[in-house]
Amino acid sequence: MCREKGAKEPVIREISLQLSPPHLDDQRADDVRLREELAKKLGQWPRLPLSVLRKLTRVLREGNFSLRTVLGYDGAQWEVLDVHPLGHNSPLLGLGVDLGSTSVVLYLYDFRQRKVVRKHSFKNPQIAYGEDILTRLHYADKPERRHELHTLIVDKLKREIRHLLGDLSPENIYYLALCGNTTMAHFFLDLETRYLYREPYLPATSWVDLLKARDLGLPAHQEAFLFVFPNAGSYFGGDLLSGIMASGLHKQEGFSILIDVGTNAEVVLGNKDFLLACAGAAGPALEGGILKCGMQAAEGAIERVRIDPQSLELSYDTIGNAPPVGICGSGVIDLLAQMFLAGLLDQRGKFVPSRLPERFCSLQGESAFIVAFEDETAHGRPIYITQGEVKSVIRSKGAMYTILTVLCNSVGLSLDQIERFFIAGSFGHYIDPEMAVTIGMLPDVPLERFVSLGNAAGKGTVKFLEDRASFRELRQILERLTYMEMNVRGEFMHLLTGALFLPHTDWSLFPRVRKKLSKPQ
Amino acid sequence: MCREKGAKEPVIREISLQLSPPHLDDQRADDVRLREELAKKLGQWPRLPLSVLRKLTRVLREGNFSLRTVLGYDGAQWEVLDVHPLGHNSPLLGLGVDLGSTSVVLYLYDFRQRKVVRKHSFKNPQIAYGEDILTRLHYADKPERRHELHTLIVDKLKREIRHLLGDLSPENIYYLALCGNTTMAHFFLDLETRYLYREPYLPATSWVDLLKARDLGLPAHQEAFLFVFPNAGSYFGGDLLSGIMASGLHKQEGFSILIDVGTNAEVVLGNKDFLLACAGAAGPALEGGILKCGMQAAEGAIERVRIDPQSLELSYDTIGNAPPVGICGSGVIDLLAQMFLAGLLDQRGKFVPSRLPERFCSLQGESAFIVAFEDETAHGRPIYITQGEVKSVIRSKGAMYTILTVLCNSVGLSLDQIERFFIAGSFGHYIDPEMAVTIGMLPDVPLERFVSLGNAAGKGTVKFLEDRASFRELRQILERLTYMEMNVRGEFMHLLTGALFLPHTDWSLFPRVRKKLSKPQ
Repeated sequence: MCREKGAKEPVIREISLQLSPPHLDDQRADDVRLREELAKKLGQWPRLPLSVLRKLTRVLREGNFSLRTVLGYDGAQWEVLDVHPLGHNSPLLGLGVDLGSTSVVLYLYDFRQRKVVRKHSFKNPQIAYGEDILTRLHYADKPERRHELHTLIVDKLKREIRHLLGDLSPENIYYLALCGNTTMAHFFLDLETRYLYREPYLPATSWVDLLKARDLGLPAHQEAFLFVFPNAGSYFGGDLLSGIMASGLHKQEGFSILIDVGTNAEVVLGNKDFLLACAGAAGPALEGGILKCGMQAAEGAIERVRIDPQSLELSYDTIGNAPPVGICGSGVIDLLAQMFLAGLLDQRGKFVPSRLPERFCSLQGESAFIVAFEDETAHGRPIYITQGEVKSVIRSKGAMYTILTVLCNSVGLSLDQIERFFIAGSFGHYIDPEMAVTIGMLPDVPLERFVSLGNAAGKGTVKFLEDRASFRELRQILERLTYMEMNVRGEFMHLLTGALFLPHTDWSLFPRVRKKLSKPQ
Repeated sequence: MCREKGAKEPVIREISLQLSPPHLDDQRADDVRLREELAKKLGQWPRLPLSVLRKLTRVLREGNFSLRTVLGYDGAQWEVLDVHPLGHNSPLLGLGVDLGSTSVVLYLYDFRQRKVVRKHSFKNPQIAYGEDILTRLHYADKPERRHELHTLIVDKLKREIRHLLGDLSPENIYYLALCGNTTMAHFFLDLETRYLYREPYLPATSWVDLLKARDLGLPAHQEAFLFVFPNAGSYFGGDLLSGIMASGLHKQEGFSILIDVGTNAEVVLGNKDFLLACAGAAGPALEGGILKCGMQAAEGAIERVRIDPQSLELSYDTIGNAPPVGICGSGVIDLLAQMFLAGLLDQRGKFVPSRLPERFCSLQGESAFIVAFEDETAHGRPIYITQGEVKSVIRSKGAMYTILTVLCNSVGLSLDQIERFFIAGSFGHYIDPEMAVTIGMLPDVPLERFVSLGNAAGKGTVKFLEDRASFRELRQILERLTYMEMNVRGEFMHLLTGALFLPHTDWSLFPRVRKKLSKPQ
């Protein structure tokens, strides 16, 4: 097994060996015979759990002292997770788990093929106890209820992992890596959550020592490891750390920003030397959830909107090409950008109904813009956005832009100096960076600087399985990460004012948008 | 907690802490708050198992961030085994287990008082499957039978540990250290034993990685560690390594010999730089077991014999001062020495019945010497030794002396150069070194060089609990230990011849015995 310098090395290794057979001049015990040979390859003496000791003797004799070993890395040491006769080529799998408060995504990773071979997502059953996290936290104030939420998600995970595996045996899963926000991870581990949302907002744990999958009763090999991503506080969870891992921004010379918009907007600025994080209430409107016609990125969600600036003809794409049901985050961003470019919104975000009277109407005393008429939609009701909703989206996008600005200012950087903007999270399918720049949510920098990560949290768990350096990297990330409380900074409120316009009061910050606007008109 | 240099430090530590309470400027998670404070005392970041994380949050709040922690050492790292509110002063216990093939001894160790507080012994229930180890090994050739022997001893241990504890809760036991010969340890762990007694005599394991007591279902704290002593081969078990630990010979500048006579005679010669071990068939007769009136060191065993050289009056002591039932190893050694000194045995070990006709008789055609007449004994039958038995004891003692000689010769030492002879094992209660020298079993060196260890294996398990350096020491002992196959050495047979006399053919080796013999006569 040749080892390239700098190449990724997974947390699981498979090593086949032919041991020298014992005789009277070599009476080493079976475990020593195996460990000494493995030590030559590993550079260290591996641990050997009791379950493996119990079968080792038989496996060695059956194969005339040749065998295949499966080893797992615990961050410092290797452990022999199983031994098999040579030729026993059952799959060598890992499982990445993105434990979202809404959706849970499972990634079945093949350590031999070095890729994700199956993917499966399902709703977090805790939704029945509250769509939002705070409702669940309130519910879980009593230990028996917290335990109920714990059992709910663990039981569901057990079933869904079995479903994902199908005909494959759980015995083939040797390593699991799970990330979730701090609350989700606490529920999963059945840890006290009372203090997560009470001042001063303390998690029970930040770094969870490596577990075994059996500690939680998950279907996997009996010695399989379970890594639960650490958190950097109640409001900066393992999902975000996993996102940082997925982006790789913590290893780069140049500065990057990772933007994750879920229920909150979480932003990380940094490079290989420092990481500055903050969270702010930029999310809700962008996520689509709080609009009357808003929805999450699921089948039937309008995710793309285009309005011809000349004809003012409106077209849209939906997820799964299904008849529209609602509009998701990326659709909302597109909608505002296109309306603005077509002159249907002014710089203050006010409707300009005179340009296209047939799409503007009054609904329950509020003026609204129709995106899809009732005869186009799945449910026979129109899909629209109200004037008030536009204002709240603008507040969110303004908050986002301001967070980015404040973060950069705080370390003496300008937005221009950021080499990469990694965009992650569940707010819309994949946002169109050009549209996000147009409304002034993202800065007006060359478009190639924006990198869509999709489900960065999920990808981070796979990255963990792929690269055992992740242990060290995560510890470094935690050490380097500084959390900045955004809401308490006066600068934020001051800068926000200018960002509450489309794209901004200061046109010099958005030269390309200005150019675009001036071109057709 | 002040730390003396060189002072023993147990594998369990108890640390009480007052943590700084959290506030908005110190949002460290509960685990980090605790671990960082502990790290100041430990010099390292301790592990924290899930069970402790689950109660930590509550314990911290109940005690206003003061708490008592119990930590266990795994040979490299500390683990927080439990957290309690301050003032929770339940006992802090460890358990040493000497898992003998005949007797099992439990030592309840108090980590606060730093001493053994209770001791309890019981028969190994596997005796029902064979008094000797080989019979049990044969029986265990089939996995289900091996598993039966495993269950038998583990279930018995569970019951007897609970018995030992009485009103104390198993929760108070935080660390267990168990030693046994290689076969006993394999049965205990349910490891394959087929190859232990088939050439080339391989154990399944030599070094058992630290376990949790729950892995074997033993009654103890749910996070309690279980250390199983390693072995140096099929015939050099953890009981002997524990004996070496108890003697401390591996740490001394001068040379020592450890003699453990059980079913076999195991001898270790060495100092802090090397350890040379061998085993030989010196034991059986000395152990008392194979004499018709022989017995193990238990109530009613004759353990001391004196014969007045003038009046030839014979007196004896029994264990527990009970009416005699039989004679144990130390009694046999005394008996031969006293008979020899009184002229009742000649140098070749032949009876001299003419000196005391009333104690010599013929039993089933064999001449015998009566130690206790039928009216003195518990069972109303005489206790005696036959001429043939005397010969076999002499063969055993001769073998023992020869083993010591060959061991010393092999490293160019003479028996004179050995500073300490540690005498351990179950052969008799405590042997009287002077008597052992008289019959030529032990060399004629100043008596103060002989140190009785009693149950060295059991003491070694207690030493392990008392001193966390034991992990390192045991690894060093295993590295330094060389095992010498005695039976294959021609030198042994050659030297044995001279040792088959009382005390030896070469009187110059036993000047004090010679002097003693010449004095009264």
